[in-house]
Amino acid sequence: MKPVVSIIMGSTSDLPILEKAAKFLDQMEVPFEMNALSAHRTPGEVEEFARNAESRGIKVIIAAAGMAAALPGVIAAMTPLPVIGLPINSTLDGIDALLSIVQMPPGISVATVGINNGMNAAVMAVQILALGDEALAKRFAEYRATLSEKIVKANDELKNVKYNFKVD
Amino acid sequence: MKPVVSIIMGSTSDLPILEKAAKFLDQMEVPFEMNALSAHRTPGEVEEFARNAESRGIKVIIAAAGMAAALPGVIAAMTPLPVIGLPINSTLDGIDALLSIVQMPPGISVATVGINNGMNAAVMAVQILALGDEALAKRFAEYRATLSEKIVKANDELKNVKYNFKVD
Amino acid sequence: MKPVVSIIMGSTSDLPILEKAAKFLDQMEVPFEMNALSAHRTPGEVEEFARNAESRGIKVIIAAAGMAAALPGVIAAMTPLPVIGLPINSTLDGIDALLSIVQMPPGISVATVGINNGMNAAVMAVQILALGDEALAKRFAEYRATLSEKIVKANDELKNVKYNFKVD
Amino acid sequence: MKPVVSIIMGSTSDLPILEKAAKFLDQMEVPFEMNALSAHRTPGEVEEFARNAESRGIKVIIAAAGMAAALPGVIAAMTPLPVIGLPINSTLDGIDALLSIVQMPPGISVATVGINNGMNAAVMAVQILALGDEALAKRFAEYRATLSEKIVKANDELKNVKYNFKVD
Amino acid sequence: MKPVVSIIMGSTSDLPILEKAAKFLDQMEVPFEMNALSAHRTPGEVEEFARNAESRGIKVIIAAAGMAAALPGVIAAMTPLPVIGLPINSTLDGIDALLSIVQMPPGISVATVGINNGMNAAVMAVQILALGDEALAKRFAEYRATLSEKIVKANDELKNVKYNFKVD
Amino acid sequence: MKPVVSIIMGSTSDLPILEKAAKFLDQMEVPFEMNALSAHRTPGEVEEFARNAESRGIKVIIAAAGMAAALPGVIAAMTPLPVIGLPINSTLDGIDALLSIVQMPPGISVATVGINNGMNAAVMAVQILALGDEALAKRFAEYRATLSEKIVKANDELKNVKYNFKVD
Amino acid sequence: MKPVVSIIMGSTSDLPILEKAAKFLDQMEVPFEMNALSAHRTPGEVEEFARNAESRGIKVIIAAAGMAAALPGVIAAMTPLPVIGLPINSTLDGIDALLSIVQMPPGISVATVGINNGMNAAVMAVQILALGDEALAKRFAEYRATLSEKIVKANDELKNVKYNFKVD
Amino acid sequence: MKPVVSIIMGSTSDLPILEKAAKFLDQMEVPFEMNALSAHRTPGEVEEFARNAESRGIKVIIAAAGMAAALPGVIAAMTPLPVIGLPINSTLDGIDALLSIVQMPPGISVATVGINNGMNAAVMAVQILALGDEALAKRFAEYRATLSEKIVKANDELKNVKYNFKVD
Repeated sequence: MKPVVSIIMGSTSDLPILEKAAKFLDQMEVPFEMNALSAHRTPGEVEEFARNAESRGIKVIIAAAGMAAALPGVIAAMTPLPVIGLPINSTLDGIDALLSIVQMPPGISVATVGINNGMNAAVMAVQILALGDEALAKRFAEYRATLSEKIVKANDELKNVKYNFKVD
Repeated sequence: MKPVVSIIMGSTSDLPILEKAAKFLDQMEVPFEMNALSAHRTPGEVEEFARNAESRGIKVIIAAAGMAAALPGVIAAMTPLPVIGLPINSTLDGIDALLSIVQMPPGISVATVGINNGMNAAVMAVQILALGDEALAKRFAEYRATLSEKIVKANDELKNVKYNFKVD
Repeated sequence: MKPVVSIIMGSTSDLPILEKAAKFLDQMEVPFEMNALSAHRTPGEVEEFARNAESRGIKVIIAAAGMAAALPGVIAAMTPLPVIGLPINSTLDGIDALLSIVQMPPGISVATVGINNGMNAAVMAVQILALGDEALAKRFAEYRATLSEKIVKANDELKNVKYNFKVD
Repeated sequence: MKPVVSIIMGSTSDLPILEKAAKFLDQMEVPFEMNALSAHRTPGEVEEFARNAESRGIKVIIAAAGMAAALPGVIAAMTPLPVIGLPINSTLDGIDALLSIVQMPPGISVATVGINNGMNAAVMAVQILALGDEALAKRFAEYRATLSEKIVKANDELKNVKYNFKVD
Repeated sequence: MKPVVSIIMGSTSDLPILEKAAKFLDQMEVPFEMNALSAHRTPGEVEEFARNAESRGIKVIIAAAGMAAALPGVIAAMTPLPVIGLPINSTLDGIDALLSIVQMPPGISVATVGINNGMNAAVMAVQILALGDEALAKRFAEYRATLSEKIVKANDELKNVKYNFKVD
Repeated sequence: MKPVVSIIMGSTSDLPILEKAAKFLDQMEVPFEMNALSAHRTPGEVEEFARNAESRGIKVIIAAAGMAAALPGVIAAMTPLPVIGLPINSTLDGIDALLSIVQMPPGISVATVGINNGMNAAVMAVQILALGDEALAKRFAEYRATLSEKIVKANDELKNVKYNFKVD
Repeated sequence: MKPVVSIIMGSTSDLPILEKAAKFLDQMEVPFEMNALSAHRTPGEVEEFARNAESRGIKVIIAAAGMAAALPGVIAAMTPLPVIGLPINSTLDGIDALLSIVQMPPGISVATVGINNGMNAAVMAVQILALGDEALAKRFAEYRATLSEKIVKANDELKNVKYNFKVD
Repeated sequence: MKPVVSIIMGSTSDLPILEKAAKFLDQMEVPFEMNALSAHRTPGEVEEFARNAESRGIKVIIAAAGMAAALPGVIAAMTPLPVIGLPINSTLDGIDALLSIVQMPPGISVATVGINNGMNAAVMAVQILALGDEALAKRFAEYRATLSEKIVKANDELKNVKYNFKVD
């Protein structure tokens, strides 16, 4: 089994956020790999990774980065694969990372998701892969059907909140 | 007794903020309901709720949401009832939620209150309802008269703060 | 015929923005008045206005202000009527006015609409008034039905945009 | 020929920005359609569009919106297809639109590109489609190879800028 | 002994910040008073206070407020006395309070100091009063002379920080 | 006649904003001087100015600066006189200048007015001087009484705005 | 003569800002080169440039970039030479470029100057080079001595501004 | 041994951030000194320091400051030496300090590094000094070579993170 999604992070301190991505890919039965790379500390390895990702069978890259978050854009510049950029909040509430990832120059595009939103990075990866994988599309549809459950449960909890003028 | 205010939230984690709204409606003897709905996770239920709210006797809707807070605007688009939007701070100090709620396109209006200010959502609901309900208007006037009490009490506390050059 | 909506502005330089409010109230056949008042330059007149608005038959107040926009909150503090706050962009893209209007302390609530969005101030006023005025509710429903027309027209225009790979 | 990309905008005033997307799809020979829809003004049509897009053969949706930009997220909630969100600058330099689009709740993901960056919305659409379309992948690779040309031309221009201490 | 500085706050929760102001006035032997007032909750008392402050012998007013901080500007509008505005951080890092206080319309001026900087509110009050009070000017000059002491002490501490290549 | 207010600016490009200050001081018959100084380009002259201002009879200093606006704080550090800081918008809407002026460390205080608000810098100077100058206090009171005139004129203009449902 | 400063820009549209840098280097008689490079469009050329700059005799690099401005950081990661980062305002007033350049991870440092401040990029380059070049240090000292001239000239202009109460 | 780098801070509360700078200089065997100085509290000492730094043998100055961080710019104005500005986060996430340091007027330049990024201040100092010190250049090259080690270690950790569909 070869990985089709590659999750890249700058340091293992980002792991708690990327675990949400990993767990969702796992749940969706999407083979993936996780690697640490840094646009600034290991530029050579970044290039090697980006240049070879497609030929190794990777289809979608999830790149997480904080601060002056160059990693997603630098990878996007060196691969034709879709790169999903995940801004990590390490300073300034993550606004620096968000802007550093999303405001790319025309021609090099990064599909940016919300700050610290590891889950949505994986969801977008699955949606992209599901275009060419019917079994995955089916698993994703099943997942989507469960999204309302949390709301149903919330409504059950709200039923138990009592006020004199609250009407059930 | 039928509810006239409907409080909508995206998850029960917002409950501590909405309790302030619920308590004030309770104190004002305004029948209300509380439901969980999500513009993104349960769009069908949102539409059903919004389309039927008026015919069920609801007069004012309080919709709380955080992040890319689409819920108040989406509800407002599907009901003629006034929708009070309550931005919840879950990321970026709530600035994302505030802008996502208040910056509506011309024609679809959301009456936005302050970030995490559940109390003011309920106060606005009461003020709107009181236009057509004299007994409620009277209760609200009584509440308003008590607002200065907190200030009176604060002044009493300040009397006990002693400095050499402080003059009572 | 007595006015039921009072539009308050700090200077006639805000008139182009408030004309959108005025025109919509006119279209909805809602009697209104327009006055200039300033929380900072004419505090006495503001108080007189706010204290007497309800007894004069006003039901909803639209208060527009820019910069350190105290007017909507100051009026809200002195009347039980719902006050709709309209932030005007005169400095800092209107962010100063938006925060000065929306971030009210608990107990005094201002129903804030988008920056420079005079139209939505009037729409909210009409929605509030329509709760107790069936004829107005009908006129508002008719207006709402026309909102999609602009989109229909836009789609017609888009039909005429030709590209080789565009499919109609 | 059936469209595989659907470009959605809220009004034809966004057309100059979306033309960059359209032209690039045209250049890449990707069949596309362009429609106007509004999450707030035509919620019914948005739902109909989103629910049927996949079965009509659409593979990727580009949704542009400004201000409280709910459209991309609302569409994403009702389709399994990848939705690319394009924030339009109509107020606040587009920061309101960016945050309204990118800060989605976990589970519903929008692939956000830069403010007013129509080109990058189309580039991402092409990258996603190219995963399952070798001819398109080849055309995209050819396009990518031309990106450096602008830089080459810039260097030629810089050769003609003369200063005493500038060294060619 | 009559107070010449009046410290106004919206609630006793601001007391820890205003204590820095009170202590400095105390140290400078400036008679002062402390009161709680709210532009929104006790507008009548605010007006009474502002209208009578000068005739009671007050010379400088320090007004602290958070959120949509209208208090300093509203007081400034009703007295010829200089009003020092002190923004309190209760939401949004205090940026809302800062903008609500400093961005006054031309003609009504508030002398704004830094967010939560109670000390500097008192320092400015003393500097203003010292223009007409030589004894106070002398005490202030003595205080100023001590400002460098903290730096001297810091340098002493730094002497004890040892590194191989640190040179004393 | 010796000047009692000193207006300091970094360059004559700020003159249009400071003219509003100059005109108001002129109208209030306050003798003033205007000088160009730069904390960064002429630090020696700044120090000489600040150290001697009091002994030359200056009572209040108005210091305008843009960008990393160090001038007001640096002057404040070297004189016991009250310094009014006027942030000039040359970049970033003036937010950089506002924060550079207002966020002073405890002990050195700058009385900050709104961005580009030359008028309010002069108004605050007059209010401070009027504490010790009855004739000036009287002139200021007369000026204050005229502030409502602009509002009266605005109301006259609004009388001429006609709509079918506008009520005079 | 070999260049010792290398000015890098992403496009010739940045030339008007970099001309200020070029002119100052010219005036200081510092040999320099100007090249266009893009971290995203020509990553290979960027690497080649950065890896070889030192051995070609370059001592300081000035890298200008806008939006998600990765260029300065990416170059800094691949050379031991000091890199001066110059944020260009193309969107969001240049705040995105500033944060993308200055918020580097520990270990890879970019010496950032103000937004669009081409002059200060060159000034810093000269200051660094002058540490090892006495003749340059002398020329820089002469330049520094002229900085106050602009202020002198401004004071001359201010002498001609006449008001009744202005004192020369 | 004479110091060649001078680290300046406003108070010893900034020491934890500057320790990172000190430790790196120590590791690189660069003689340095640490002093406390304040542009606002000890302006005389700042000037004395800045005017004499060069003749004492200092080559690079690292100046750390928070809030209205005038210190780096004020020092830069009085020395030809390169000044590295280090913004300290004490309020507003350090944005006030960053803007107060980086947005210098043309002619006086501060080499600004990231908020609280003491390490990068020292890295830039070393890079500047290494231009004229081959032994230091060698030590810095050795340090640079270790930067990838953290990434290698991170990859080792990631190997131990197990998921069903994770591929090593």
